[in-house]
Amino acid sequence: MHYQSILESVAADVAPMVGGGRVANYIPALACIPIQQFGIALHTVDGQQAWAGDARTPFSIQSVSKVLGLTLALQALGNTLWERIGREPSGNAFNSLLQLENEQGKPRNPFINAGALCVADRLVSAHIQPAQAFADLGLRLHGKPFVFDDEVARSERETGFRNAALINFIKSFKQIDNDVETVLDLYCRQCAIVSDCVQLARSFSYLANAGVQPGTGETILSSEQARRVNSVMLTCGTYDAAGEFAFKVGLPCKSGVGGAIVAVVPGQMVLCAWSPGLDETGNSMAARRALELFVTRTGLSVF
Amino acid sequence: MHYQSILESVAADVAPMVGGGRVANYIPALACIPIQQFGIALHTVDGQQAWAGDARTPFSIQSVSKVLGLTLALQALGNTLWERIGREPSGNAFNSLLQLENEQGKPRNPFINAGALCVADRLVSAHIQPAQAFADLGLRLHGKPFVFDDEVARSERETGFRNAALINFIKSFKQIDNDVETVLDLYCRQCAIVSDCVQLARSFSYLANAGVQPGTGETILSSEQARRVNSVMLTCGTYDAAGEFAFKVGLPCKSGVGGAIVAVVPGQMVLCAWSPGLDETGNSMAARRALELFVTRTGLSVF
Amino acid sequence: MHYQSILESVAADVAPMVGGGRVANYIPALACIPIQQFGIALHTVDGQQAWAGDARTPFSIQSVSKVLGLTLALQALGNTLWERIGREPSGNAFNSLLQLENEQGKPRNPFINAGALCVADRLVSAHIQPAQAFADLGLRLHGKPFVFDDEVARSERETGFRNAALINFIKSFKQIDNDVETVLDLYCRQCAIVSDCVQLARSFSYLANAGVQPGTGETILSSEQARRVNSVMLTCGTYDAAGEFAFKVGLPCKSGVGGAIVAVVPGQMVLCAWSPGLDETGNSMAARRALELFVTRTGLSVF
Amino acid sequence: MHYQSILESVAADVAPMVGGGRVANYIPALACIPIQQFGIALHTVDGQQAWAGDARTPFSIQSVSKVLGLTLALQALGNTLWERIGREPSGNAFNSLLQLENEQGKPRNPFINAGALCVADRLVSAHIQPAQAFADLGLRLHGKPFVFDDEVARSERETGFRNAALINFIKSFKQIDNDVETVLDLYCRQCAIVSDCVQLARSFSYLANAGVQPGTGETILSSEQARRVNSVMLTCGTYDAAGEFAFKVGLPCKSGVGGAIVAVVPGQMVLCAWSPGLDETGNSMAARRALELFVTRTGLSVF
Repeated sequence: MHYQSILESVAADVAPMVGGGRVANYIPALACIPIQQFGIALHTVDGQQAWAGDARTPFSIQSVSKVLGLTLALQALGNTLWERIGREPSGNAFNSLLQLENEQGKPRNPFINAGALCVADRLVSAHIQPAQAFADLGLRLHGKPFVFDDEVARSERETGFRNAALINFIKSFKQIDNDVETVLDLYCRQCAIVSDCVQLARSFSYLANAGVQPGTGETILSSEQARRVNSVMLTCGTYDAAGEFAFKVGLPCKSGVGGAIVAVVPGQMVLCAWSPGLDETGNSMAARRALELFVTRTGLSVF
Repeated sequence: MHYQSILESVAADVAPMVGGGRVANYIPALACIPIQQFGIALHTVDGQQAWAGDARTPFSIQSVSKVLGLTLALQALGNTLWERIGREPSGNAFNSLLQLENEQGKPRNPFINAGALCVADRLVSAHIQPAQAFADLGLRLHGKPFVFDDEVARSERETGFRNAALINFIKSFKQIDNDVETVLDLYCRQCAIVSDCVQLARSFSYLANAGVQPGTGETILSSEQARRVNSVMLTCGTYDAAGEFAFKVGLPCKSGVGGAIVAVVPGQMVLCAWSPGLDETGNSMAARRALELFVTRTGLSVF
Repeated sequence: MHYQSILESVAADVAPMVGGGRVANYIPALACIPIQQFGIALHTVDGQQAWAGDARTPFSIQSVSKVLGLTLALQALGNTLWERIGREPSGNAFNSLLQLENEQGKPRNPFINAGALCVADRLVSAHIQPAQAFADLGLRLHGKPFVFDDEVARSERETGFRNAALINFIKSFKQIDNDVETVLDLYCRQCAIVSDCVQLARSFSYLANAGVQPGTGETILSSEQARRVNSVMLTCGTYDAAGEFAFKVGLPCKSGVGGAIVAVVPGQMVLCAWSPGLDETGNSMAARRALELFVTRTGLSVF
Repeated sequence: MHYQSILESVAADVAPMVGGGRVANYIPALACIPIQQFGIALHTVDGQQAWAGDARTPFSIQSVSKVLGLTLALQALGNTLWERIGREPSGNAFNSLLQLENEQGKPRNPFINAGALCVADRLVSAHIQPAQAFADLGLRLHGKPFVFDDEVARSERETGFRNAALINFIKSFKQIDNDVETVLDLYCRQCAIVSDCVQLARSFSYLANAGVQPGTGETILSSEQARRVNSVMLTCGTYDAAGEFAFKVGLPCKSGVGGAIVAVVPGQMVLCAWSPGLDETGNSMAARRALELFVTRTGLSVF
């Protein structure tokens, strides 16, 4: 198969963009990451792998962890999860408080910070050791527990006043059951999971395979749940640029301010591209462009 | 082929819902439509057709015409169209003015009223007889000109103070080039196009066929444009329920307050379901449920 | 009495500021006014007058006419006027649509454009010749009918898309009874009234005199009504700078984008200052500063 | 002097309203207050006192403490205080986050919760023992230190998620210098000051006397500062009903959810009315009505 050469040509073509944009600087421990890095990897549902660039360099997955949190919450709660979290695009910046005020503390979707905090609250209720549940999920998805960067978690915890505002605000509507500090701790830990492109592409391949993890054959989500996670990724996975991603990439994607973007080609494969320089919407510039080039060359798109 | 029997079983299953919800009453000429009607039709890219129920009963297509307007504008202007109209979900009710104020008169997408008015303004600039351009498009899509219900157009024109507010507001940001009355006239006429399920499923089949109209082989849009129209339908096509449609139907859809919903299965077919009773998001209750049942039974979904 | 010398010293002290700021340019017919002009006048409840600078130069009173409209509407309707118009500060720019959406088309107060349009609608219902009612009011307030600058009225009418948006929006909530064009015509005419500082200070002196016009002794408003108009001027009379005016001037004021500001010292006098250069809140820079200096020197303030 | 009989007649006239409305229930320790209480007191600048009803019953002053906080901050910082806090009415409910997002964490005025939290932050920076500064202010204003109800403070501290959201949100804009917990502690303590109508009317009499406390002759604020505190009370002192208070009462007022309302008649006196039942704007129903009756009977009004 020629995926390897496509990834290499994509990596070559985005090379001039690498270094552009800005590294996320609101978390001090992330602000010092070298910006001149780019990696891309894919994992097909029949077990093929390909990668190019810095695809084995570890990075902080940040908001990509929201897909892991959603997966764990659907495993624990099924559809009752959606009683407290919506599935609509927010039409606002990813950490806005506006919509919460209008909608009485029910976040619009699980991929904005407000929604991910609610998901974390549900996991604190469902698991005695919720951080361990994230670690264990790694074991099932790629054979090793996910690891956390404690310094990043602590750095985010100490400076994340916006997230503290969000969770207190939601709790004022009685939509958070647990202690706000406990939920914030979990949230900051999950964001501080460390992974790389190859590992993430493999980890999320159940989303391209009707919920069943290729290789192990283990059912991570039901087929319907996997399809629905994909739909929420497409409509809400890339902050306030979801429409642009749908328009130009045409695949369910989830991005993080660490510079990673995961993309799902239903029935075929999962990709992960990564580069630390972000555009003004908080998405990695080079990773975003790499995914556009990939779909243009392969014709892969859900549309 | 078994599509006929599936459509019939879907029609049977939604029968108890038909008559629920409320007919759109803000346009007096539409308020008197009998609510006890339901039709569904599909048209595949290889020319198969199937339908059930009131699939040949004419209705006012209303906002479904926004897909026609967008198609005409892309034909006339190509990608320059997007300089004045965004592609992001709005996260607000379909006729809200809030976002326009924050974003200096640039509507979020072409499927909210504000965006469709901007598209209409572009068509007034591009065509000497813009209403005729809509009629002519019908000729190319299903062999007969689209026809307008002048009474509905006039009724909407006389009572559409919200649309008059929108266009004046956008013009105050200098984002409307033509006279507001002329643009409102065109907008109300396009909304008043009369069609039926069978005709609409056939008309929009270029969206499932990479821009080429099946049957005639005529290129209506480029392959990339068709894919992008689909993406905007998925993220923005059903008012403030786009996330729910993506979640439960998983297909690009466009709805209208006349009760129609058009859905695209890329590479395969276009469906049109219709029933006048609307839910609180402005989408037809029975048509929405019918599409959910159809995808559940066929497994067709972009995710 | 020493008011004359105080006005002269104030005029001398603001002279260096005259010419600063920007002339209102959204109404083409106003954009060409020479900016190097300043006048100030006062009229006491016992009939004294004093003035300095260009106090007899005619200008377009613009939003100062909203006090005249409110006066006429209270005369015609009494307290029932308040069923459709609030009395709360808006906390937003003077022509915002945001609040109307949240409050179902009921404007926050009669001194934002939305509220003044509602007042104009009430006057269209109450008077066969509502523009004549404004003219006649001049006869009672200063002995001559108010005159209108038809070119300014036409210029504002043709370019006032924001006002057209506002009134259509309010009408969509069924809070405007008359034809939008008729109401807009009246509104633009009242804004185009031409007056000068001396005439305006005299005209509004009933507001300082418990509703009774000094000189004629005619009751224009009840004592309670006059007090309440003053309160609305203080909390809402100067666009989004009402808090600043209360803080620094401490008097009920009403400003217009023609550069005039009227100020009431209850029980004592009315002032009118004028200079065409506006600050970013839409209030005349030099007139505002002149009123601050006047209250500092006289100690006059409601607080 | 006849003030005593006026207060008694006002108390008699509002008696049928006492018990209406609802006691504030978001602070558990306040929710159990008997609603059937009403008191009113006044203190003139020449030292006269009068009172009626439960004017010596202690209550939690809650947001009335914002005037004390503002007074302390003006003493400590003078006009530099206003660099971080505005003076405009908010036009929104008293605890809204919306405006903060639009205005980058600068609260609109010191009497909404967001602004009072910023004032408290300034006091934490200015005083080694900021709570003691409040207590000491009591000594200067009425001869005894203010006392705090620790249970109310703790109850508010434990359940005040909205205030925790506000302060974290403001801190995310770098507009809070101190630790959020420390500032919240101070804020909740100041709100929990216990006083009564007679004591409050006396305490705030410097606001009616150009900043000088009658009786002691001590300068609490400069004459200009006192006038400006009054102006902010009038435009912002009664939550989202400031316009209504200006309209119907016509005096600078500050209310609290404990049921107290303080009103200033510049140059003459300060009143304090109290009754626990609140209307939907968070202001005491009976106290509000009592002040309306008082100004109607005495003709006292700044307008």
